[in-house]
Amino acid sequence: MPTYRAPAEDMQFLLHDVLQVDRAEVPGYDMLDRDTTAAILEEAGKLAAGVLAPLNAIGDRQGCRLENGVVRTPEGFSEAFGKLREGGWNGLDLPEEFGGQDLPYLMSTAVGEMMVSANMALNMYQGLTHGAISAILTHGTQAQKETYLPKMVSLDWTGTMNLTEPHAGTDLGIMRTKAEPQDDGSYRITGQKIFISAGEHDMADNIVHLVLAKAPGGGEGTKGISLFIVPKFMVNEDGSLGDRNGVTCSKIEEKMGIHGNATCVMDYDGATGFLLGEEHKGMRAMFTMMNEARLGVGLQGYAQAVAAYQNAVDYAQDRLQGRDVTGAKNPDGPADPIIVHPDIRRSLMDQKSFVEGARAFTFWGAHLIDRHMRSEDAEAEGLISLLTPVIKGFLTDKGFDMAIQAQQIYGGHGYIEEWGMSQFARDARIAMIYEGANGIQALDLVGRKLARDGGKHVMGFFELVKSFLKDSAEDPHLAGFHEPLKAASKDLQAAGMFFMERGAKSPNDALAGSYDFMHLFGHVCLGLMWARMARAAGAGLDAGQGNPEFLKAKIATGRYYMERHLPATGMHLARIRSGADTVMALDEAQF
Amino acid sequence: MPTYRAPAEDMQFLLHDVLQVDRAEVPGYDMLDRDTTAAILEEAGKLAAGVLAPLNAIGDRQGCRLENGVVRTPEGFSEAFGKLREGGWNGLDLPEEFGGQDLPYLMSTAVGEMMVSANMALNMYQGLTHGAISAILTHGTQAQKETYLPKMVSLDWTGTMNLTEPHAGTDLGIMRTKAEPQDDGSYRITGQKIFISAGEHDMADNIVHLVLAKAPGGGEGTKGISLFIVPKFMVNEDGSLGDRNGVTCSKIEEKMGIHGNATCVMDYDGATGFLLGEEHKGMRAMFTMMNEARLGVGLQGYAQAVAAYQNAVDYAQDRLQGRDVTGAKNPDGPADPIIVHPDIRRSLMDQKSFVEGARAFTFWGAHLIDRHMRSEDAEAEGLISLLTPVIKGFLTDKGFDMAIQAQQIYGGHGYIEEWGMSQFARDARIAMIYEGANGIQALDLVGRKLARDGGKHVMGFFELVKSFLKDSAEDPHLAGFHEPLKAASKDLQAAGMFFMERGAKSPNDALAGSYDFMHLFGHVCLGLMWARMARAAGAGLDAGQGNPEFLKAKIATGRYYMERHLPATGMHLARIRSGADTVMALDEAQF
Repeated sequence: MPTYRAPAEDMQFLLHDVLQVDRAEVPGYDMLDRDTTAAILEEAGKLAAGVLAPLNAIGDRQGCRLENGVVRTPEGFSEAFGKLREGGWNGLDLPEEFGGQDLPYLMSTAVGEMMVSANMALNMYQGLTHGAISAILTHGTQAQKETYLPKMVSLDWTGTMNLTEPHAGTDLGIMRTKAEPQDDGSYRITGQKIFISAGEHDMADNIVHLVLAKAPGGGEGTKGISLFIVPKFMVNEDGSLGDRNGVTCSKIEEKMGIHGNATCVMDYDGATGFLLGEEHKGMRAMFTMMNEARLGVGLQGYAQAVAAYQNAVDYAQDRLQGRDVTGAKNPDGPADPIIVHPDIRRSLMDQKSFVEGARAFTFWGAHLIDRHMRSEDAEAEGLISLLTPVIKGFLTDKGFDMAIQAQQIYGGHGYIEEWGMSQFARDARIAMIYEGANGIQALDLVGRKLARDGGKHVMGFFELVKSFLKDSAEDPHLAGFHEPLKAASKDLQAAGMFFMERGAKSPNDALAGSYDFMHLFGHVCLGLMWARMARAAGAGLDAGQGNPEFLKAKIATGRYYMERHLPATGMHLARIRSGADTVMALDEAQF
Repeated sequence: MPTYRAPAEDMQFLLHDVLQVDRAEVPGYDMLDRDTTAAILEEAGKLAAGVLAPLNAIGDRQGCRLENGVVRTPEGFSEAFGKLREGGWNGLDLPEEFGGQDLPYLMSTAVGEMMVSANMALNMYQGLTHGAISAILTHGTQAQKETYLPKMVSLDWTGTMNLTEPHAGTDLGIMRTKAEPQDDGSYRITGQKIFISAGEHDMADNIVHLVLAKAPGGGEGTKGISLFIVPKFMVNEDGSLGDRNGVTCSKIEEKMGIHGNATCVMDYDGATGFLLGEEHKGMRAMFTMMNEARLGVGLQGYAQAVAAYQNAVDYAQDRLQGRDVTGAKNPDGPADPIIVHPDIRRSLMDQKSFVEGARAFTFWGAHLIDRHMRSEDAEAEGLISLLTPVIKGFLTDKGFDMAIQAQQIYGGHGYIEEWGMSQFARDARIAMIYEGANGIQALDLVGRKLARDGGKHVMGFFELVKSFLKDSAEDPHLAGFHEPLKAASKDLQAAGMFFMERGAKSPNDALAGSYDFMHLFGHVCLGLMWARMARAAGAGLDAGQGNPEFLKAKIATGRYYMERHLPATGMHLARIRSGADTVMALDEAQF
């Protein structure tokens, strides 16, 4: 059975040594002194490792059951969810006005990683609630906020997002769910939504569904879409729960993974809904949730790799097979632990360099969101908007790959469910798909984000890389870092240039390279993160501060990433430059 | 529910236009005229698509059950296995003396691909029998052959391979199962074996286990190992079945996939075993089975991708989402089919170029085996011995990746078990693990095969590439093929050179690059296959023979592989050249 250890030391290093929250001048960051973050991470780590992680395999095995319209979650989930509620974990970064603690998003990201690594399926009930809260916070009326938010922040009620219909996934413009205006200002919502995570369950008193539907008069396609609040139970004036609303779960899906989370088919049968935000501007409101959700999904991707990696390391240190070719390391035993073998090391280093780089990237993303939300920093907003599809797409693709590599370390045992490594891979798999399949992320990146504001934000990114290279040029700890990062960044620029030159005349040339571009970009980001981490680690070593073994491992792991992963950028550039000709060469009938 | 279409046209093209079996001068190839192979492929295709494929999802859902020592296979499996038996499919390439048809291995490989694509779990019962037959054919006495082979060839009895023990997987030298010699020349076998595919089931009258165990006096490690025949039921002099032998299945494993195949824990409790081959030379005998099995596993890897790809194409042609950026392709519908989108095409082309390249590579491998076995061609033996770990490791890694890509085409539906795409990925996953995890394949390639006979065989491979390039230099159909293949082959040579220069002094430098080398080699092989296929297709077009749409698609798909996949070799070379320093930089405690 897998175990989980909360990576608090690495998180503290990121917060204080890499991101240097004490100097960041973001309102609220004054709350993040070293002792406070240590205390929060310790408590979160205890909950994650002690309560959530032991339920992960149980959730996978038992799954959810639909019985007479009621969804039963796995044994222990409800109690554990109660602990999340009691600890106030959901409100960590939410406004005090509604019961939250108003800590920076960065902090809730760190805590969130622990929860997701420990039990992704269980944490989704909270994560979706958090996204729904964000949408209500941004687009709701004061009355709506007062009605729904306190109970949602406390997790007494949970939330959902309802976008997809059987025939309309990525292409929301063709959805059919309709909203008929009523005399009292409410709407009657009718239609079917699918893939609704946490759509129905037995862990909260009420469920607040946010539902996209078409109200009359909005026009064709996505223009006609509005967003509605549809509570499972109507809420009375005094806040007590009233009648059951006309929304039911008619089926839960059997999935490859995240069995502990109920993926529901939701039937809206003239349910009462309340407009959230402006009529016919539902897509904009939905994107508030989606952008946050996409970062959260990127986090899910690497968080599963974190848990899988930890167990792979344990197994590699315990399992005895074969001998070190340079001389036995365990001469008194029947064989050496497999961690002595270079190819096992290669795999573990792939995993370690990815998960730590991904964590840095995600924390940086969360920091940019704080700068945007708390300091109204437009540059930060532009940058995180550019990087969101990279975080979502690259980190979930690679997170899944790394979960597969971790499973591989176990040999045959990795394939046996009892050992738990299959679950990490199966759970991680969904992150590549939902909140916009990764191909859609690539399209968003190349088709929209790259050219936004005249390419200003991608230029800003290149400036960041350039100034880092310049500022750190003489740092002896970074020997071996500069050239690969420079070359990778140059490849990224060349790819961007290719799109600019070709894209206008031949959009397919850009689109055919979009997926490679997303990966190319991801590698450059992780390269930059590793260079920044190595610089911070070197500074710590020079100053005699921190754990020297930890800091030296950082630099060595960064060097591995530079040598072993950044060469991928050349391959992606070559693929991009081949354009659309071979991609589109076949007729549809020739496949 | 997924469907399956047998790719007979592509197989015919490989047999007759690429491998040109009529000119190959291999004994037995005279049986492979175009009409005969067409008839065999048609019959096999009917069985695969009509009988085996419809049971694939049922097998996944129901799995196998152990009840009082008896394993119940899923509904319909026994009947379908009866059809394999009636059709004589198992004996296709086995000696007529024992009931087979003595057709070339190449032919049984083509048929095998169909069966595996249609239902991998079911086909494994046959595949393991085939491997056990090979071992008995090569190492058994005439009496043993007469006792076991006719019933095994006919599939009245099935076979298994018993290697792994709970503490001994890759490292067989530390196994504990023991064999005590008895006065009558038999042995008493005692111990526990795990991961025994098809170890117990309800589809055959008897099961012939081939078991590795340690007989006294053989010395330490793998030297002490012998191979034994341990039948489930003893066989009387007259061929009838006698007493139950002391071997039982005590558990079946819950796995990530191949649920229709029973993966058994087998307990040997003083079971009667008969030495197969020489005492203490069991490893050699086992390798007879393993080499064949490794090719078979490589085939499993890409065969799952074949089935997944076919369904991804169907879905991409049916599913309407979004519009072609260059203009609507389905203006009367609510949206265009997703196959119009360049990133969907990119994914489908990745899959198509892989599965057809992998098929060509595997068929070529089977042809080399025929040349070795039927013509005693030492060069062919050397080459296939070199290429076996590449076929196993590269094709299973990429086959799994492509099954994942095919699943991705389905968006959210890909994650729902009902749609069947998850099963292809979950089933394909095992192929990267069993018969030697892919890291072991890479070790075999770099640590043993590369340097075998002074590097003669890898030199032979480079000669093949070189002479192909030379012979085809003027072929106008190959425009765009030569440079990428030349560059990739040069990268492979440079990597081999790096190992030669470093390997002796610092074996870890070679081992740290072994996995990348296996992939680099795989790409060069698929590049060579695509160049050969394009050449054959071009010749067909020039001669006005064959289906021109098919032949043009071949050339276009090959060009895609050259442009989009061969650039990976530069990345692998860079990773290899970084050596072991960063791979081995951390202490074990620093992970």
